[in-house]
Amino acid sequence: MTGPAGPSDGGIITAAILVIGDEILSGRTKDKNIGYIAEYLTNIGIDLREVRVVPDVEEEIVTALNALRSRYTYVFTTGGIGPTHDDITADSVAKAFGVGIDHDPRAVAVMKARFDALGTEMNEARMRMARVPNGADLVANKISAAPGFWIGNVITMAGVPAIMQAMLDDVAPKLKTGVQMLSESIRADLREGDIGTELGDVAKLHAGVSIGSYPFFDDLKGPNTNIVIRARDAGQLANARKAVEDMLARVKGKLMA
Amino acid sequence: MTGPAGPSDGGIITAAILVIGDEILSGRTKDKNIGYIAEYLTNIGIDLREVRVVPDVEEEIVTALNALRSRYTYVFTTGGIGPTHDDITADSVAKAFGVGIDHDPRAVAVMKARFDALGTEMNEARMRMARVPNGADLVANKISAAPGFWIGNVITMAGVPAIMQAMLDDVAPKLKTGVQMLSESIRADLREGDIGTELGDVAKLHAGVSIGSYPFFDDLKGPNTNIVIRARDAGQLANARKAVEDMLARVKGKLMA
Repeated sequence: MTGPAGPSDGGIITAAILVIGDEILSGRTKDKNIGYIAEYLTNIGIDLREVRVVPDVEEEIVTALNALRSRYTYVFTTGGIGPTHDDITADSVAKAFGVGIDHDPRAVAVMKARFDALGTEMNEARMRMARVPNGADLVANKISAAPGFWIGNVITMAGVPAIMQAMLDDVAPKLKTGVQMLSESIRADLREGDIGTELGDVAKLHAGVSIGSYPFFDDLKGPNTNIVIRARDAGQLANARKAVEDMLARVKGKLMA
Repeated sequence: MTGPAGPSDGGIITAAILVIGDEILSGRTKDKNIGYIAEYLTNIGIDLREVRVVPDVEEEIVTALNALRSRYTYVFTTGGIGPTHDDITADSVAKAFGVGIDHDPRAVAVMKARFDALGTEMNEARMRMARVPNGADLVANKISAAPGFWIGNVITMAGVPAIMQAMLDDVAPKLKTGVQMLSESIRADLREGDIGTELGDVAKLHAGVSIGSYPFFDDLKGPNTNIVIRARDAGQLANARKAVEDMLARVKGKLMA
């Protein structure tokens, strides 16, 4: 593992997630977006390097957003773009970028078409959802029309999982992506404490490869371990896998002796 | 809502969570600890103000930990205290505090007792889990013996949910807690866009109260909204609740007219 990279780290595309919402911090709502976005980005060759969750407080959103957008290729925000007074993400993003914010005619048009079809009034609250920082592109919301937006390297999405997922699908084809991280998982059939030292030795000899060790409990066999090997190069990955498998066989032989 | 507070913000006790682990950022493991700790802290009168997820990279852990521990009453870390080479949390916490780290005789004793009873060898890898920053107190782990620890205002716990939960139970009675945040949830039976402006007006008139609006989809009735009112003062909470209910009745009357 290397540390987080700036926006142009030798072809590696990095990202952060900024989750915005008091309801996540109070525990009332259990976040389902972090894990979904993490897996999605990994699958398209983008390295998620950091996540932050902050409350519905403008200063907190602006500070976190500016810290993250200067460090990573992309920042994905979730939450706070609805029609109510506690939805302050769009204003906060505009402030972070030092740009104005207005009703976006493209957003108004797409929302008006949807609401007209439903017989729903486009009132002041709903118009709030058409406010977009100046210079931003829209992110389509095929679920409920009110769009997200993309400004600089920041992509602002809804917090409702189904809508966030639709927005991510809209954005994904336009993202720069890097070489995908390949990954293999090996079930050790040993406890972490049985292999810790030996696995560390393997990891030292395979520096270009990330080797993680994750304990789990098998209801039949008891404590067990998954070893996850990750690399961008298939050859390095195969070499490390062989070294791990050889090590596991050695340790099993020793424990049975 | 007020912004995050420093360690002594007029009786309000604040906290942050630092989740440590490549497996969360890759999406391989879906975090279950953030929501659990958030709800737990809310219930005992501690305000969770921020969450960060960082990779298994010492510099990242140290930087995030120092940022968080200077701002909040407590920082809870999860992950990275197992027996393998990628478990670097204890060393990183020691580095953040500028203290040494050694095998702690209390930790060795409690682990040796458990492993002896199981007939398990206390090998070099398992001894790694007894390494604790100098000056830290231990956090008991009734599930698998290897302890967490508490140094300054930082409480370091395991990443495995069952073990983290046991550690939180051990720590909770020793935490300073504030006046509990009271909370009530009102089902609006209206869409967010129907009430956004009116709810904002109510929120402006009840400044000491936090009013959140959360859309959800009812399979029978369609789009709907939960309004969550939070306050430390029961009277303020009741006043805000009445104002919200009156507002909802007004809007319903208007929409039916």
